[in-house]
Parts: sequence; C-alpha cells; structure tokens
Amino acid sequence: MTPRMSTSKDHKSSTAEQVNRGAYICGVNDLRLEPYKLPESLGPQQVRVRIKAVGICGSDVHYLKHLKIGAYEVKKPMVIGHESAGVVEEVGKDVNHLVPGDRVALEPGIPCWKCSFCREGLYNLCPEMSFFATPPVHGSLADQVVHPAELCFKLPEKVSLEEGAMCEPLSVGVHTCRRANIGPETRVLIIGGGAIGLVTLLVARAFGSPRIIVADTHAERLSSAMEMGADETVLVSKKEEDMMKEIEEIKKKMGGPIDVSCDCVGTTKSLTTCLEVTRSAGRVCAVGMRETTMSLPITPAISREVDILGVFRYRNTYPVCLDLISSGRVDVKPLITNRYKFTEQDIKDAFEMSANGGNAIKVMFNL
Amino acid sequence: MTPRMSTSKDHKSSTAEQVNRGAYICGVNDLRLEPYKLPESLGPQQVRVRIKAVGICGSDVHYLKHLKIGAYEVKKPMVIGHESAGVVEEVGKDVNHLVPGDRVALEPGIPCWKCSFCREGLYNLCPEMSFFATPPVHGSLADQVVHPAELCFKLPEKVSLEEGAMCEPLSVGVHTCRRANIGPETRVLIIGGGAIGLVTLLVARAFGSPRIIVADTHAERLSSAMEMGADETVLVSKKEEDMMKEIEEIKKKMGGPIDVSCDCVGTTKSLTTCLEVTRSAGRVCAVGMRETTMSLPITPAISREVDILGVFRYRNTYPVCLDLISSGRVDVKPLITNRYKFTEQDIKDAFEMSANGGNAIKVMFNL
Amino acid sequence: MTPRMSTSKDHKSSTAEQVNRGAYICGVNDLRLEPYKLPESLGPQQVRVRIKAVGICGSDVHYLKHLKIGAYEVKKPMVIGHESAGVVEEVGKDVNHLVPGDRVALEPGIPCWKCSFCREGLYNLCPEMSFFATPPVHGSLADQVVHPAELCFKLPEKVSLEEGAMCEPLSVGVHTCRRANIGPETRVLIIGGGAIGLVTLLVARAFGSPRIIVADTHAERLSSAMEMGADETVLVSKKEEDMMKEIEEIKKKMGGPIDVSCDCVGTTKSLTTCLEVTRSAGRVCAVGMRETTMSLPITPAISREVDILGVFRYRNTYPVCLDLISSGRVDVKPLITNRYKFTEQDIKDAFEMSANGGNAIKVMFNL
Amino acid sequence: MTPRMSTSKDHKSSTAEQVNRGAYICGVNDLRLEPYKLPESLGPQQVRVRIKAVGICGSDVHYLKHLKIGAYEVKKPMVIGHESAGVVEEVGKDVNHLVPGDRVALEPGIPCWKCSFCREGLYNLCPEMSFFATPPVHGSLADQVVHPAELCFKLPEKVSLEEGAMCEPLSVGVHTCRRANIGPETRVLIIGGGAIGLVTLLVARAFGSPRIIVADTHAERLSSAMEMGADETVLVSKKEEDMMKEIEEIKKKMGGPIDVSCDCVGTTKSLTTCLEVTRSAGRVCAVGMRETTMSLPITPAISREVDILGVFRYRNTYPVCLDLISSGRVDVKPLITNRYKFTEQDIKDAFEMSANGGNAIKVMFNL
Repeated sequence: MTPRMSTSKDHKSSTAEQVNRGAYICGVNDLRLEPYKLPESLGPQQVRVRIKAVGICGSDVHYLKHLKIGAYEVKKPMVIGHESAGVVEEVGKDVNHLVPGDRVALEPGIPCWKCSFCREGLYNLCPEMSFFATPPVHGSLADQVVHPAELCFKLPEKVSLEEGAMCEPLSVGVHTCRRANIGPETRVLIIGGGAIGLVTLLVARAFGSPRIIVADTHAERLSSAMEMGADETVLVSKKEEDMMKEIEEIKKKMGGPIDVSCDCVGTTKSLTTCLEVTRSAGRVCAVGMRETTMSLPITPAISREVDILGVFRYRNTYPVCLDLISSGRVDVKPLITNRYKFTEQDIKDAFEMSANGGNAIKVMFNL
Repeated sequence: MTPRMSTSKDHKSSTAEQVNRGAYICGVNDLRLEPYKLPESLGPQQVRVRIKAVGICGSDVHYLKHLKIGAYEVKKPMVIGHESAGVVEEVGKDVNHLVPGDRVALEPGIPCWKCSFCREGLYNLCPEMSFFATPPVHGSLADQVVHPAELCFKLPEKVSLEEGAMCEPLSVGVHTCRRANIGPETRVLIIGGGAIGLVTLLVARAFGSPRIIVADTHAERLSSAMEMGADETVLVSKKEEDMMKEIEEIKKKMGGPIDVSCDCVGTTKSLTTCLEVTRSAGRVCAVGMRETTMSLPITPAISREVDILGVFRYRNTYPVCLDLISSGRVDVKPLITNRYKFTEQDIKDAFEMSANGGNAIKVMFNL
Repeated sequence: MTPRMSTSKDHKSSTAEQVNRGAYICGVNDLRLEPYKLPESLGPQQVRVRIKAVGICGSDVHYLKHLKIGAYEVKKPMVIGHESAGVVEEVGKDVNHLVPGDRVALEPGIPCWKCSFCREGLYNLCPEMSFFATPPVHGSLADQVVHPAELCFKLPEKVSLEEGAMCEPLSVGVHTCRRANIGPETRVLIIGGGAIGLVTLLVARAFGSPRIIVADTHAERLSSAMEMGADETVLVSKKEEDMMKEIEEIKKKMGGPIDVSCDCVGTTKSLTTCLEVTRSAGRVCAVGMRETTMSLPITPAISREVDILGVFRYRNTYPVCLDLISSGRVDVKPLITNRYKFTEQDIKDAFEMSANGGNAIKVMFNL
Repeated sequence: MTPRMSTSKDHKSSTAEQVNRGAYICGVNDLRLEPYKLPESLGPQQVRVRIKAVGICGSDVHYLKHLKIGAYEVKKPMVIGHESAGVVEEVGKDVNHLVPGDRVALEPGIPCWKCSFCREGLYNLCPEMSFFATPPVHGSLADQVVHPAELCFKLPEKVSLEEGAMCEPLSVGVHTCRRANIGPETRVLIIGGGAIGLVTLLVARAFGSPRIIVADTHAERLSSAMEMGADETVLVSKKEEDMMKEIEEIKKKMGGPIDVSCDCVGTTKSLTTCLEVTRSAGRVCAVGMRETTMSLPITPAISREVDILGVFRYRNTYPVCLDLISSGRVDVKPLITNRYKFTEQDIKDAFEMSANGGNAIKVMFNL
C-alpha cells in the first residue's frame, strides 16, 4: 500500500477567472490535475507566465515513485515539473526587459542572490534556493506560474517554446562542460546515453571537443548518440565483471588519452569506469547521482591526479543555451521523442512512458 | 619465511677510491650496507654529490616491509632513501650554477622534460619518471650519488643539510596547498598528524590560512600539531561508529565553513570525514594513500560540488621550500625527532624506529 | 570663481526627531553640514544605521575640488563619504542577521544583484551600481543612513568602529592581491605609499608575500611603509629621466624576479616602471588612476607576457577584511593619522588636511 | 647605402655530398643562397630533416629590411625562415618516435627545458630559447636542418607538408585563443586581417566562438576574412579621427558585448580600439607588435577591469594544430596564396611579394 497525502483545500481558487490547474503529486504514482492558486498580486519584479511546454525529468519521475530524493521529501501535494517555457501574461511594475506576449524559458531555481555563494557567482549552491518541484516548492507543470522576471529569458524568434523548455536539461550539459573545462583539446567519454548524457554530448561538441565516445547499456540509446554526433559508442553491461573488457574497448575506440569522463549515470560501475580510463591530470565529472555510497578504486585515480568534480544543476547557463540553440550550434529537437497534452490521462501516460519507455528520451507536455 | 634477493656482484667497485656504500633493501626487513657503484664518468649536466642527510619516509618503510607499493616492486636489491641533501663534489662540464663544495638539496625525481606532461609543467606525472628508491631506481641513502644538476638546489647559507633533506616532505605540503588553493581565506582541516600532515600544517599556515585543525588518532601527534601552530586538534578513533560525533566536533571547533580538507591518512574513514565536513564548493585534497578501494558516500559531496583533488608527489617546489625555510616562515626542525648514523646497525635501528616508534615524526640519517 | 550649486530644500526634514545631518558638497571646495532626509519607511531588507566613523578617501577630496571624476559629475549637492561604520538603530522586517545595537561596517556600493555581472560574482562591475558619494548618490558622512542589510557587516567584538570604516580601503588591497594572485611565492613591488599603497602592502603580507618593496616620492611615506612591514623602500622622483636609475635600484633591492607590480599611483611614470620591472609572465596590477591617457612602452612588456590587470573597487571583501583585522593579521590602526569631529569647521579642516597634509595617511571622522 | 655583412667562409662545406644550401640574409634586402653547414654528427636526440615547405613570416621580412627587431640584430649572415616542414632523413640513436621518411612539422624554438619557465610549462618565455631565424640562430629555409626530435611532429597522413609548415602561424592563433580563453561564449573582435589575424579567426571559430568580427584597412583582406568564416567585417582607416565612428560600427555589428579583442596589428590606433570596445571584465589580447611605445587611454579600460594579455609566440601548440588541420576543423590552405621554388631568384621574388604584395596572405616555398 502506497502513501497518500490529502490534497489541501487552500489551492482551490474561488473565482472562475483565476482557475489555474497544476499537476500535483499526491502520493506514490498518484498524479492529479487540480486547481493551483497563484498569488493574488504580482511582486514588482515578478511576471505571470502562461506555461506552454514542460519536459519531464528523471527527478520528476523519481519523486512520483518514491516521494523523496535525498533529504527532500514530498510531504504535501506538490505541483510537478521544472523544465518549462511559456508566454508572459503580466509583468510587475519594475520589470523592464519583458512585456506581455513575450515567449520565455523559465530558469527553475530562485536563489537568494545575497548569500556568499550567490555573491560569488555560485548561486546554484545557494542554501536558500527555492527550486520548481523540489519539495516543498511547487513546480511548473501548471497553466500559469508566477516567477521572478530575472529568471525568465526571452526566446529568440527562432527558438520554439519546446526548445525553450529544453534549456533546462541543456543547462546541465553546459555546466558539466564548463566545470570539466571541455574545449577543442578535450577528448571526452560520456557514460550514459539518456537525456543528460545526450545534452552533454551536444554541448561538448559545441564547445569544440574533437572526439566524444558515449557508453550505455541500451543499444538504441547508442544509436541516438551516434545520430546526435558521437564519434563512437560502446555498449556496456550492468555487470561488474565486464568492466575491464569495456574499459579496453573504450580506450581503444578513443585512440588517445581520455581527458575528461562524464558520469551521467551515477553508479559504482559507471564512476569506477570513469576513474580508470581518464588520463593522468584529467577530470572526472560526476553528473548522475543514482547510488549514494560507492565502493571505488579511488586511490589509483588520485595518485594520477585525476580530479573528481561534482555537478549540481547549473548557473548562468540560460543565455548561452538560447544562443547555442538559436544559432543552430546545438539542436535539441531530436531529444524530444514523445509529446502529451495537459489532461489528467495524458499526464499519467506521459509519466508512465517516461518511467518505463525504453526509447523515450525526452517526454514533453504541450499546454 | 620472507623473500630474499641475491645481492648482485655488479655493484661492488674494484678500486678503493671508488668505494661508495649504499643502504640496500635486499629482502623483507633485510637492509644491508653494500658497495654502490657510481657511473664511471659524469654526464655534462650531472653532478656528483656526497650525501650528508637523508630522512626516512613512510614509503621507504613500506618497501622494506612489503617490497612493493602499488605496481612498483623491489625485484633486485635497491638502495633506499629519497629525502636527501649533500655537498657537491664534482660537476659535469655544462653545469654552471653549481661548484664543488656547494651544499644542495636533491629533488629525487628525474622526469624526461620532453613529454606532454613535462612540457605543460606537470612533470610529476611524467610517465618516464625515474625517482630515487622507486623500483627499480636506486635511492639516495648512499655515500655519494650522481644526479642531474638541475635537480640539485643550492642551500641558502641559513639552511642546514638536514633542512635541505626536509625539502622533500615539505614539497608535498606545498603541492597540496597549491592544488587546494589554500590562502588567507581558507579554513583547513588536516586529517593525519604524521610527517605529511604536519608539513601540510606548516605550509598552510605560511600560505596564510587563518584557521587550521588537525585530527589524528594519537594524542602525542596532536600535541606536536599544536606546537607547530594548529589552532585546534581533534582526537579521533579508528572506529567508523565514532565518525558522526567526530565530525560534529571538527565542525564545532572550526567555527565556520571548512573550505579545504586534506586527507593525509588515506583510509575510508579519513576520506569519508573529509567529504562530509567540507563546505559546498570546497576542496578535498587526497594526499595519503593507504587503502586502494574505499566505500565512500561520494554522491552527497559531489552534489554540493565538493571537488576531490589528488596529490601525487610535487612539482616546482624546491625553490619555494628553500625560501620558506631560509626566511623562517616555515620551521621544519621540530619535525626531526630522531637521528642516526650511516652504519648497518644504525640503519636497522632507524627503520625500526620509523616503523614502530610512536612519537618519532621524522627519522634522519647524518652521513 | 568656482561653481556653486543651490542647496535644494527637499532634504530639510520637518520634525525635530528626524533631524539628520549630512556633509554636502555644494560646490568647489564648498562643504556644508545640512539636513539629510532619510526615507520615511525602511524597506524589508534595509537597516538604519547611526554612523560613527567615516574615513576620507582621495576620491572624496577630488570631488570636492573638481566636482567630477571621469563621467561622474556632482550636479546637485551631494553628501560626501563612503568609508563608514556605525551602529544599527532599526532593521527591516525581513532582516535576520542584524539587530539594533549591532556595530557594522557598511559596504558602500549597492549592486542590482541580478545582471549578468552580479550573477557571475563580478558585482563590482554592475552597471546599475549605486555607490555612496558617487554622483548622484548620497554618501555616508551623515548622522544616519539607510542601507541594504546585506551590505552591513557585523563587527567582531575586537574590531573597533574606526577599523570597521577601514574595511573600505582595505578591500581595495584585498581585491588587488586577489586579482594579482599574490601569495607566498610572489615578490611584490608597490608604487605609491599612500593609503591604498599601504593597505596593499598590509594585505600582500597577510597573503604570504615573502618580499615587498614600496616606492614613493615622499620619504615620510616610505618610513610608514617600513613601519608597516615593507622589506625595502625606494625613494623615487616625479621626473621621467630618473626612471632607469630607479628601476635598477628597485631590481637590485628586490634581489630576484619581481612577480607582481602594483601601481597605486596611476601616472605614466609609475605604470611604465611597473611594465619595465615585472618579470616575464608576471602581472601588473593597475590600481591608481590619476592620468587617463598615458604614453607607455607597452610592447616590450606584452612580448614578455606581462599581463596588465585593472582593479576597480572590490567584491566580496568585507568578511575577509574583518577576519584579517580581528585576527590581528592586518593592523590598520597605524594608517589612521588624523581624527576629526562631525562639525562644519572640523569637516572643512579635515578635508583640507586630507588634501594638503603631507604626513596624513587616513583622516577619520568620529561622529 | 645599406649595411652589408661579409659572408663567413666557415659555412661552406667541403664535400659534395654535404652540400646543403641555406637562404641567408647578408645585408639589408640582400638575400643569398649559399652553403649551410650542418653539424658533422647527429646528437642522440636530434634528427636531420630535409626541408620541403617554408612559409614567410612578417618577421622574416622585417629582418631582411631592417636587420633587427627589438634587441635582436642580424650581425652575421643568417639563414632566414622558421615556418617549416620536411622529411626526416636521419635520427639520433635515442630517438624513438620518428624514423627516416617521416613527414614532420618543425616547431622552431628550442628551449632549455630546465629553467623555471620551462619547468612550469611556460617554455615560450625561456630565456635560453634558441629560435629559427632569430639572430644569431640560423633559420630553416635550407635544404636540410638538424633539429631536436621532440620538436619534430609527425604529420598525420591527411596533412600536407605545406599544412605542416602552417602549424607555425596557426600556433600563434591557438596561443592567442588559449590566453584569451576563447570558447563558445566568447564574442571576438580581431583587428588585422593578415595571416595572424586570419589564423586567429580560424582558431577562434574552432574553439567555438559564436561571433567574430574582423577589422582591417584593406577591403581584400576583409573579403578573405569573410571567406574564412568571419561573421562580419569592418573596413577601418589608418586615421585616428575615424576611430570613434569605427568603434560604433564595430559595436553595432557585434550586436552584443565584445568579450575579447585581439589586436593583430600592434599600433596605437588598433590597441586603443580594442581597449575601448571590449566589455567590462573582458580581455584584450595584444598579438601584433608594430609600435613600441603607444599613447593609450588605458585608465578607462583598467577601471572596467579589462585585462590586457600579451601573446609571445606559443607553447604546446603543435599537437593541437595538427589535430585541428587533420580533422578539418581548421582549413589553412586558403591562406597560402603564393608559391615559390628554392632558387635565389625565387627567394628574392617571394620576399618582395611578401613585403609589398597587397593580396598575398602567406607566401610559401616548396623545396
């Protein structure tokens, strides 16, 4: 028997014109479309956005299935979704860079802007961060949301609303490539060919990487990776005992030192593989976070001065994401494999597809 | 029954004037003073140095006990020792910066200077590295050695030969503090109060760190740390179950975010402690390397963008070490706790002291 | 005949309890103590501070004499002063880290926190910056000011209000040393022994610099520099023709490569000297800004990859300044050479002393 | 009347098989093809290379016209040329990575590999540098040269000998883009559309720059820039008075902040333009070095923390150059506009073309 939370009354709005629906996680695998109450008035630097496109992320699925990730727990019904774009409907009195009708991508995390992390430009680590669909903060899979204007980025004409929503996962790729200092002299291994692995591939290419290999346990994902520009792929298993052989294959296919390895999976095997294959003085970027504690052969890597760099969300990425997309240097459209409408049935179907669907990369709602 | 290697004849020299002795590892716990043959002629950029001071390092002790570290194995008798200083006796024809009589510290690793690592200034990672007392390369606990002139650093007048030998362990402290970017805004935890932990303490202080805490399992080592300038110490156990309590004590004593943690021990518990206590966006510097594979709660650290940086030996450190010592900003003399002569008996005694002696920090030979 | 601005009526407050005076620049060399109106209500994240200590900066003097610096022009009477500390009297409703009675240092520049510079941690370059006593923004030489809480830094018990005010010039030293990456391996030349040169000296020492030379045209300033820890000083002239000889003296006294040169004067001669003496791959930090256009032998410096780094105010410096002062690693007290009260006559006298007084380093008001 | 140096007898070789010609600068505009004596035996780490392709650089032309650049003066006849590739004919006994018949690009500067600059990876700044055709060192426009093996880079199959020679100027582009940290988020202005400006353009594009504008005084050079991938060009004059208007045009055509400006000309006007247009916290890279002393509005740039970074030759660039060329990410072939043979007449013609020829970008010898 799965947990079940009572849906609080207070997010039912009283008047018809204010009816605004949100897709709530109300319990394990219990998603409902219910009214979502917006603040009555807009702050001076806020905007009200009619949401048009929302992608589903692995963390959304995980919250729906387990009601928690790490220390974050869904204790009350919470609107899901954080990869979103929409159209501005109303702007606060101090908002200068947006007007109603503007199409915008919404950066989902609201930092305090004033703590030491924020002041030093590391706002993704702000301890006061309020992030769409990280409990207890409501997400953006709703008809409308109110959001700080400075986190709404106007879409260039060429960028569609779906592409605007894709800025969110793309941002992870950008942050990863920045942290790992990927450039035209960096050969890259990416473990994991899901959405995050693939955006990392796209960005690493745009950042100039001359050679990128993607490894995954699913052959179809490797096909996607090849279509999106990987130079080579390696089909790996989930078994520890295959690792040495796979490592040899990865090294052989790279044909030279592996400067950076990005673990977009987050298991003992994937991270171990990264530690083993990366050249001395190279970087391992840990992006995926599936297992909490891992048994790792860390000393041999450390003694070759392979640095291990964590990636937590992203910072200052939306402008470059929009530039990469609008200039055509990155094409995120092939990542969007499945589309759904904003109905309760479609929401259920979409999440099921996202959770189970083998070939789905990115599942997108069109509202 | 311990392994025993036959001492090869070829390092017996034929003429009296060439008699030059080296302290050989000839088997497990089998140390012998035997003739060590120098090259017949000096290369144009080499110098012949009469060794005067040699310190014992944990790795020397480990080779003597186990005949191997990682992939390096003592297969033939090998002269031990790599922390050394001496007096130049002869210089090659192209050597300009040294003359006979000069007192020098010997940097023990000879890189190729020409591979991509060397050219980029990362010569400590040179795959062609030939390092004193890393098998099969002979070490420097010998009457005389021949060494590249560019790795012999003239001692300032104020610096003693023993202090010259101390440049080697001190270099590890310098490389650690550089890698971790320790400065006047960096609060530092050092786990391990042995020689490496203490040189890291001394250097972190000289690099301006405002607050340094040292943790160790031995109370006497913590006393040494306090004498050498630690702000606080924490007595820890070897038991996993004490870790949470110890972490609380470390945090409390630091009284603010821990920017950098240096693990100078290299066990699952010590590295785990570092990962747990370091602030978001801080650095963990892995210096000690006792256990190869560790079970680590790495994901929580990664998700706070705590970077894990390996330290392998050092590069470009001797000039700054000599400057730190000669200016008095670092005082390595208190580290030298035990002194021995260059006799077979003393060598045996010295290594036994170094291996077992609780309060010995650095054991030094005077030749 | 000097310009004269009519003092607007609107900063006279109507009720006795609101009488709050500010020291206004009303024209060239025309300073007046007149009522300064505070906002009627405090914003949720603002605090009202009773000012207790204000230092005079060269830019204050310059505005008083010339009514402009670069593009900034005093067009209306403007309260002077930006190096200040005081006691919190009232806090806005969302302020958590301060309570009335707290002693605070006031960081004088209010950035927008939301532009691309602010988000990347470069808030000193925020184009929306509102900075005390940079026209048309009023300064802090007033009985009380209202300021954002996040720019008010609580003084540790050991730090006096005057020392709190000194955090402002000290911040310039910190930003300079950070930009120039000064540390225990950096030999530093500082040209200029005024307040900014001396704080740079103090901070460079605290950052671990092993050797610091200060050059100035006034012998008494060099005495101050020696008292504050310079290793050597060089008396220089204002004449171009003495430069080569002075450069030789500087190099000789340094006794080794000059890694960083800080120009705290800002003239053709001072910057040329920096370019000439700094070693290949070293840094020249341009802090002082007296002349706008300079005829510089820049190509020889560039061809040695000497980088020229500008310093504009500072960012994220107040916490470390307070830490440096409270720990005793930096002692700013000797910089405060002259003290005045908050009366019209004293203000006039203080500015005259600051403008003309040979031996005055920092002139401080106690309110 | 121009200076004239007597050609020393000692580089005439006695036997026919050793006849090896070099193109000597023997005086102002006096180029001669005369015997060039190779060392009698090859050092263990040297190779003898039959030169096949040599490009002419502006510095070659400058030496021919003026016999000096900065402190370097041609006092004895000196073989010209330093952009070269050839075929290995003989290798020293310790050379492992090359065999006779290998096609190689020759990195022209021989550093000492052992000074502090070399050890830190900054070998382009080595004070002991011996560089082809920098007096008194002979260059590589000769039938054969002897060179250190580690500075001979084997050409991938796809890379022609001419392309191998082009690695030299391309290296300047790589070093510039590395120093300026050009990447996918960097909008770049390049002043100067000669060979160095154009290689900087090619490399900036390969490094991911989204928008590059080239400015030059010659319309044909701008056409070349457009063909090689510039987004926009700006025709500028040599007149100071046009600068403000040109700056407006550059800014308008960029359509956003200019993050990096590369001055590939080296005049007061070009560097001033860079200082004025670059955004706060951006970088100006000074590559060209025509004028020694310049009158610069440096203070406004400094006060916006625009850093000025010098570029002197390059370091560690040949492998990436070969990779960029062989992968097709950079196409240097269009830069080679004029070809000559290795005869005295052709050499004279080639240098005249290089010195005067309006449309010539790179003049290349095929030997």
